[in-house]
Amino acid sequence: MTRPGEDEIIEKYFAPLSGPAGLGLADDAAAFAPPPGQDLVVTKDMLCAGVHFFADDPPGAIARKALRVNLSDLAAKGAEPLGFLLGLALPDDWTPDWLAAFAAGLGEDAAAYRCPLIGGDTVKSPGALTLSITALGSVPAGLRLTRSRVAENDILYVSGTIGDAVLGLGLRGLPPPAWGLELSAESQVFLRERYLLPQPRLTLRAALRASAHAAMDISDGLAGDLAKMLRLSGLTAEIGEVPFSAAAQEALRAEDGLIAALLTGGDDYEILAAVPPDMAASFERAAAAAQVPVRRIGVARRGTTPPVFHDTAGRAIQLKSLSYGHF
Amino acid sequence: MTRPGEDEIIEKYFAPLSGPAGLGLADDAAAFAPPPGQDLVVTKDMLCAGVHFFADDPPGAIARKALRVNLSDLAAKGAEPLGFLLGLALPDDWTPDWLAAFAAGLGEDAAAYRCPLIGGDTVKSPGALTLSITALGSVPAGLRLTRSRVAENDILYVSGTIGDAVLGLGLRGLPPPAWGLELSAESQVFLRERYLLPQPRLTLRAALRASAHAAMDISDGLAGDLAKMLRLSGLTAEIGEVPFSAAAQEALRAEDGLIAALLTGGDDYEILAAVPPDMAASFERAAAAAQVPVRRIGVARRGTTPPVFHDTAGRAIQLKSLSYGHF
Repeated sequence: MTRPGEDEIIEKYFAPLSGPAGLGLADDAAAFAPPPGQDLVVTKDMLCAGVHFFADDPPGAIARKALRVNLSDLAAKGAEPLGFLLGLALPDDWTPDWLAAFAAGLGEDAAAYRCPLIGGDTVKSPGALTLSITALGSVPAGLRLTRSRVAENDILYVSGTIGDAVLGLGLRGLPPPAWGLELSAESQVFLRERYLLPQPRLTLRAALRASAHAAMDISDGLAGDLAKMLRLSGLTAEIGEVPFSAAAQEALRAEDGLIAALLTGGDDYEILAAVPPDMAASFERAAAAAQVPVRRIGVARRGTTPPVFHDTAGRAIQLKSLSYGHF
Repeated sequence: MTRPGEDEIIEKYFAPLSGPAGLGLADDAAAFAPPPGQDLVVTKDMLCAGVHFFADDPPGAIARKALRVNLSDLAAKGAEPLGFLLGLALPDDWTPDWLAAFAAGLGEDAAAYRCPLIGGDTVKSPGALTLSITALGSVPAGLRLTRSRVAENDILYVSGTIGDAVLGLGLRGLPPPAWGLELSAESQVFLRERYLLPQPRLTLRAALRASAHAAMDISDGLAGDLAKMLRLSGLTAEIGEVPFSAAAQEALRAEDGLIAALLTGGDDYEILAAVPPDMAASFERAAAAAQVPVRRIGVARRGTTPPVFHDTAGRAIQLKSLSYGHF
């Protein structure tokens, strides 16, 4: 089997995905005039096979996840995507079919999220497949959200549902976990999909920009990310009901000890936002208009302890650690 | 030995390197107002241990090379650095000492080239150390150089000397190559250094912007990169004398067959530029003022064949392939 060289890889698989700023990817660098009156937002996530995804995941899904986790960062900043750069370190055993499927998935999402490929680098990896995506976005000047401006009494919201992805990851275990065997086939598919393909909440950006004091995307588990956000503002919170999907609730009925994993597992890519009380109603209206479900989970209070979560019976949940640690 | 977690790594090693746009790296994304009247230039290079550098190279040098190869891309575009993002996939056996030395080297170059760290991602690599740097720069609006606008009769220039890095890499071979044993100790040190630490030609940017039709940095070997640049404009060239360092000339005296490696080996990170004849004198003056040696190597001519190189006796050199292929 003949495999194309680097220039052919770029020309055949990636140039069709490129936007005007990428100059057909015939150059080493992308260039563009930033939109007038806008600030730039730049984010970068790195993903390794065996750590952030499985090497045998569908190649299109690997590509889409890599792009989406970056888009999720842009969403949390209230930013509109401008384009992305792809760093791709391919292991020795890559095939043209694999790469074609990878590029097809990437192109689908680049089009769907209006975020064209504008540059990057393709190299040989001595080990596992490694991806690095840098996404650029823009926000009206001065309006970028940060994590660090939560105020006392702000209402804490999360989008979507929490903990699905860590359950989807759990279902990949061999042998499958006992609780997994009790789930309906439909719930299993739903949870696996939530691990495989996060949904960046880009449509929430207008609501966030208009109403939120602070926001971040939840990538390392709700408990840890919430603690991190509140700590930056010297705050804590009592957390009430966290939104769980029907599938996650099914899993919790099978094994109630899973609650800690749901709260601390990673890969949710939902939005956590702090909204002042007088903006709460308009935030909820704007989120509904954007068709993104959001749920109040608590209120920011003065304090330096990590936020406390409660089970449905109102008892505080003991968490051994707040989030998944990579190191 | 206790190793810090991801948040501590960022706080301890990388936050001190961050510029204002990086917000102390406490957030997921960098934000900044692009300089008014400037276009943005964005470039990304990925480097893997065992492919682009040796895992046991000094950690500070690994960091500096990763940044410099990106700065070299900015230099070729005539761009001024604004900042960079670092993607770092650390293998299992990393140590705090290694990371401290890595960050120190990175910080030294970030300061020297006025290119602060503004964001990134640190993850666990299941295999080799992998780095991905995205560098952002700016050029006055509309003035960005590309590779693709070479005109017939343009004079082709290269900066510095060609082929040193591939010789420096050769000297790392075990056993050392025969020609290596004939080199002076001084030449060996020089060539190894040229492989380890490229010199991004950022000071050439004013000269390039004022006078050049097209430019690129030479990363995959002069022969291949020149062919690539000329092909984009439907041109070719007869190439005369290529500048070689005293050390490279010493190696050529020991083994004249090395000439092909010098012309096709990678990692030069010198600038290749096409300058119209009526701008040649001012280009040379501006380069001299910037203290960057530049040499005319030929003239662009109509044609579709790859450019032909000649040895000192004026004979055409047969090259088996034009550049180092990663795939």
